[in-house]
Amino acid sequence: MARVSEDAALPTHIDVAGLGEVLLGRWPEARKAARERALDPRLHSNHNLTFEDQRELTFEQVKILRDAGTALVGVPEYLGGSNSPGANVSAFEELVLADPSLQIKSGVQWGLFGSAVLNLGSKEHHLEWLPDILNLNTPGVFAMTEIGHGSDVASIGTTATYLPESDEFEIHTPFKAAWKDYLGNAAVHGKAAVVFAQLIVKGVNHGVHCLYVPIRNDNGEFLPGVGGEDDGRKGGLNGVDNGRLHFTNVRVPRFNLLNKYGAVDENGEYSSPIVSPGRRFFTMIGTLVQGRVSLDGAAVLANQMALSIAVRYAEQRRQFNTDSDIREQTLLDYQQHQRRLIPRIAETYAMIFAHQQLLDKFHEVFSGEDDSDGNRQDLETLAAAFKSMSTWSALDTLQEAREACGGAGFMAKNRIPQLRADLDIYATFEGDNTVLLQLVAKRLLTDYSDEFKNADVGVMARYVADRATEAGFNRSGLRKLTQAFTDTGDARKSVNALRDPEAQRALLMDRVETIIEDVADEMRAVARKSKSEKAEVFNNNQHRLIEAARSHAQLLQWEAFTEGLEKIQDPGTKRVLTWLRDLFGLHLLEENLGWYLAYGRLSMRRGRALESYVNRLIARLRPYALQLVDSFGLSPELLRAEIAGTVEEERQQEADTYFRRLRASGDAPAKEAKPARDPKAETRGHHA
Amino acid sequence: MARVSEDAALPTHIDVAGLGEVLLGRWPEARKAARERALDPRLHSNHNLTFEDQRELTFEQVKILRDAGTALVGVPEYLGGSNSPGANVSAFEELVLADPSLQIKSGVQWGLFGSAVLNLGSKEHHLEWLPDILNLNTPGVFAMTEIGHGSDVASIGTTATYLPESDEFEIHTPFKAAWKDYLGNAAVHGKAAVVFAQLIVKGVNHGVHCLYVPIRNDNGEFLPGVGGEDDGRKGGLNGVDNGRLHFTNVRVPRFNLLNKYGAVDENGEYSSPIVSPGRRFFTMIGTLVQGRVSLDGAAVLANQMALSIAVRYAEQRRQFNTDSDIREQTLLDYQQHQRRLIPRIAETYAMIFAHQQLLDKFHEVFSGEDDSDGNRQDLETLAAAFKSMSTWSALDTLQEAREACGGAGFMAKNRIPQLRADLDIYATFEGDNTVLLQLVAKRLLTDYSDEFKNADVGVMARYVADRATEAGFNRSGLRKLTQAFTDTGDARKSVNALRDPEAQRALLMDRVETIIEDVADEMRAVARKSKSEKAEVFNNNQHRLIEAARSHAQLLQWEAFTEGLEKIQDPGTKRVLTWLRDLFGLHLLEENLGWYLAYGRLSMRRGRALESYVNRLIARLRPYALQLVDSFGLSPELLRAEIAGTVEEERQQEADTYFRRLRASGDAPAKEAKPARDPKAETRGHHA
Repeated sequence: MARVSEDAALPTHIDVAGLGEVLLGRWPEARKAARERALDPRLHSNHNLTFEDQRELTFEQVKILRDAGTALVGVPEYLGGSNSPGANVSAFEELVLADPSLQIKSGVQWGLFGSAVLNLGSKEHHLEWLPDILNLNTPGVFAMTEIGHGSDVASIGTTATYLPESDEFEIHTPFKAAWKDYLGNAAVHGKAAVVFAQLIVKGVNHGVHCLYVPIRNDNGEFLPGVGGEDDGRKGGLNGVDNGRLHFTNVRVPRFNLLNKYGAVDENGEYSSPIVSPGRRFFTMIGTLVQGRVSLDGAAVLANQMALSIAVRYAEQRRQFNTDSDIREQTLLDYQQHQRRLIPRIAETYAMIFAHQQLLDKFHEVFSGEDDSDGNRQDLETLAAAFKSMSTWSALDTLQEAREACGGAGFMAKNRIPQLRADLDIYATFEGDNTVLLQLVAKRLLTDYSDEFKNADVGVMARYVADRATEAGFNRSGLRKLTQAFTDTGDARKSVNALRDPEAQRALLMDRVETIIEDVADEMRAVARKSKSEKAEVFNNNQHRLIEAARSHAQLLQWEAFTEGLEKIQDPGTKRVLTWLRDLFGLHLLEENLGWYLAYGRLSMRRGRALESYVNRLIARLRPYALQLVDSFGLSPELLRAEIAGTVEEERQQEADTYFRRLRASGDAPAKEAKPARDPKAETRGHHA
Repeated sequence: MARVSEDAALPTHIDVAGLGEVLLGRWPEARKAARERALDPRLHSNHNLTFEDQRELTFEQVKILRDAGTALVGVPEYLGGSNSPGANVSAFEELVLADPSLQIKSGVQWGLFGSAVLNLGSKEHHLEWLPDILNLNTPGVFAMTEIGHGSDVASIGTTATYLPESDEFEIHTPFKAAWKDYLGNAAVHGKAAVVFAQLIVKGVNHGVHCLYVPIRNDNGEFLPGVGGEDDGRKGGLNGVDNGRLHFTNVRVPRFNLLNKYGAVDENGEYSSPIVSPGRRFFTMIGTLVQGRVSLDGAAVLANQMALSIAVRYAEQRRQFNTDSDIREQTLLDYQQHQRRLIPRIAETYAMIFAHQQLLDKFHEVFSGEDDSDGNRQDLETLAAAFKSMSTWSALDTLQEAREACGGAGFMAKNRIPQLRADLDIYATFEGDNTVLLQLVAKRLLTDYSDEFKNADVGVMARYVADRATEAGFNRSGLRKLTQAFTDTGDARKSVNALRDPEAQRALLMDRVETIIEDVADEMRAVARKSKSEKAEVFNNNQHRLIEAARSHAQLLQWEAFTEGLEKIQDPGTKRVLTWLRDLFGLHLLEENLGWYLAYGRLSMRRGRALESYVNRLIARLRPYALQLVDSFGLSPELLRAEIAGTVEEERQQEADTYFRRLRASGDAPAKEAKPARDPKAETRGHHA
């Protein structure tokens, strides 16, 4: 049924090894070493424990990572490190193969707690605290989020007030909503915390800053003034001891203010290299982008795990006789099963290439290759866009894989449900995905009005002309994109034009631009109105702004995929991956078909032809599905899912052999004779 | 921001109590008693246990239900029951409020194991086995699914061969793929099983039949010839002890064949009241529809739980200052948050009314009020349609609710993650949802060709005329539905026409009919071709057939909602619920907008206006959101989620009081002065 009708001389296979190397990205050795390490059974968690016991097990696993020296890769030479942020994050992402709790527990220690000291502190701070952070003498807490404020960090309630008389800061939690919450390492293991608080010096609030605060003694007891609560069991990640912290007039020396972006001198004078409080805040928060980058990578890897398991099973598993009385059909030969898995393979490839671009940019900024303001802002926007898309995609793909494997998919021994439970929180921690997409949308609006603001007459005229065309088109139904492809009388030919990558790009981009332009117009109309009127117009456009941000992220993924094709040498592989890129693009058009038709970007004829075209493209890719997931390089030993091996195939061979021998023996029972007349028989054979 | 612009004299509130009664359906007392019982802390599971301990706890809980006599409601008077299938299932569904594992563990015992004896056995079988099943002396297993065959039950490998010499049946598992799998009660507690096997009598296979087979002695040891394996930990429902069973030449008396639809007499002669083996099989399987009916009800209840928690939290939780410097905005005032929750409230109402119709029909059939063949078949189709839609909806809604509550949504103390983990398997057990939708589609195809087959000349002529119009329309872009509403120059007026319920119904129905007609045409074209050619055409249409089945199910939900409106007395409540029904209908149009535009059912103008119309409808419903979920009647004590109470509101009031006093005291720290000149400041305020 995997019909390939249109092209002669199809590639017989794809270059799994060569493609696999491309998919490993810029730091393949770091990834390979991490995968080797992930095979170590000591790093494989046991989830059939109380959450209290799981936490202890995970903490022991973090010590194994410490002994392997993994944390040193990301820190400067003067701390014994090799200062390769890209290699460090690459290896960190791969920890999801061992166990997500281990990934997050070590990420809290080195990626959040340690990175805050590294990126917000001075070299003196590094030398004072980082050695004990790296070697786990000081397990630590990243105390930013409060019960009352998660997404809106700028509004947290904890205060750090400078006391000139003792040259100290006093950390204080004024009410319950200002308790720090959801903090890894807070419930049990943390001995110190980096605490984000409103910095008050001489009666002036300088906004959120970060201070290093010891919280427990060596017996694990809270220090005076520090208190907390255990968050208890969670939906997943129960190897991480999340909890709450509060502070009652806790004093720390002035030295403990991480002072890279805001310092208090011995005279009690505040100073900052960034004059604007708003820009200072965003710069400080921006240094913590590593979490989003690495969650993106981990989520993309989870997709690869899910699809590796589900496709291998779907290639072996058979159910129902459809075109043969003897041999049942494999799941992956069913069109609907292809529809469920193959577009998700395409999306995963797009996200792999997108993540490579994100990680490269992260390395540029944090290694100092290019840490310009513009590059930092691009990094933040990309991280927000890709992290939200990939963490949602991981939940969707893991669920689809679970269901595609039926009851087997629900068994812990097949790994998928625990992965999904653990990754659930990835959609809202390190930035709630909805809020992140809104950030992306605001960036698009800002860029759009910047372009408008600085426009010379030429650009301005072009803009007006474009808008006029747009308005005219909306009234008349004329297409704006006629230059990209022309419609013909033949539905198949007309949809074939969509294989042109420039047509795909133009359509994907047009949707983003049109929505953003339209919202910008509405915002401009109320630019001089009251704050609440502006807020209302913005809110009335929130849904489509978020849709525009999503489409923008997908366009960036599409472009990354398209650029990634250039890295592939083998012509057959490149051809198959080009189909896969086309599928990614056309599936996006299909998902937003209502918009493309309502705004005249696609004709009704093309709209009607799209579904069957996508179906044919999927059928053409079906023979390569297994090789496409094999290229992810995830062995059954890494996946640790029984059905990712050959167990299903072996069971079927045993059954086939049994029935073959039975038929040959002549002892096979006969089928019951069909009744001579039974008028109602089979007339309602509505069961498959 | 909850702007209500179009209607004067809006209802000030809805009649929560009166609406709540309507939502309870035909057996309100059964539901109320079950809710009262669900408050009993002995029925609340502890999930912080090994799965082995969870199983024992859940088994103890089932004994509490036994002591309450809950299982008797569904059985005949001669067993001490009250023979009310509808009341029985109503109460059973509500168990999800206590714990899904408890629901499924008791459902295995009484709903599957017991029901098989009841519905497939004779009165002698009832009297022999049901008393011990009802009182838990015989915990039992429903042994249908095998490792190798889940959806395709007809192809199972286990055999039951009649032995004339001893007048016994021999149950045998010929190979590993024929091991029974995923069976509740099999791993630990089951003492007997109803085993589905190919019945072989005198060398003839009469197809799948069901036999009662003891499997363990009173010490919990397997009887001779019986073996098994523990399925171990699962993604959820760990209070249920799923496992595998296999049989090696296990003999049971001839009496143990449940013989309602197929019997073997003392001369070893097979007979059945249903001559056709195919029809016999589907009739037997059809008696087990209770599982699907009750999962539908449980899933709809899970939706109500998720939305009760998320909406109550969204009404209290505030984040970001948008239109005020002092007061932050509640989550539910954000358009995107409304978009996430309010259409799901509409869908849940539609599913509640749809489930009431399903349960009424179930009661008709199983109480004997109307157990005609036609009604049975309608029941099966409705159950397949609604169970698949609602179990998927529950996973989607629980996930959206989890994310809408942020980190709090991930905490076990807020209930959502465990519910979602437990309900995950509802999407594939008791019928894989994708397979169920395919059954619905096949029923639609059958009904369509029946109509065609029996058509008199008039119908035939009408059909040909319809098809001609359709084809003409497809070429010219003419609308088929012009009679339902006419387009005007005014976009808002033109979309307003969609508030007409007849327009909604016509559009929803048209989509189903058009797809089914189209596929039927393609199938007819190959009707005389080979089996494999027919299979290929069917497979090439599988995706859109499943989409048609989904749309059909949604149309039935829409109709149930519309009929449900008639039960509402209070005019204001009826008005609000009519908007909610409109939202359900228009949101379906929005989700399939590409189809409606590509096939000319909606104009481009209407297509463009739809999104903002839906947004306005959602905003109009927003003030009633809390009352709409309050009408579900789920108290905080039933929900057992911390954030479903008032904790968030109390924390905010404490913080507000703190800040108000601070401002009044004059001790509030000043904001840092804005810099006189900092050209880069705030130009990239792309963080919310």
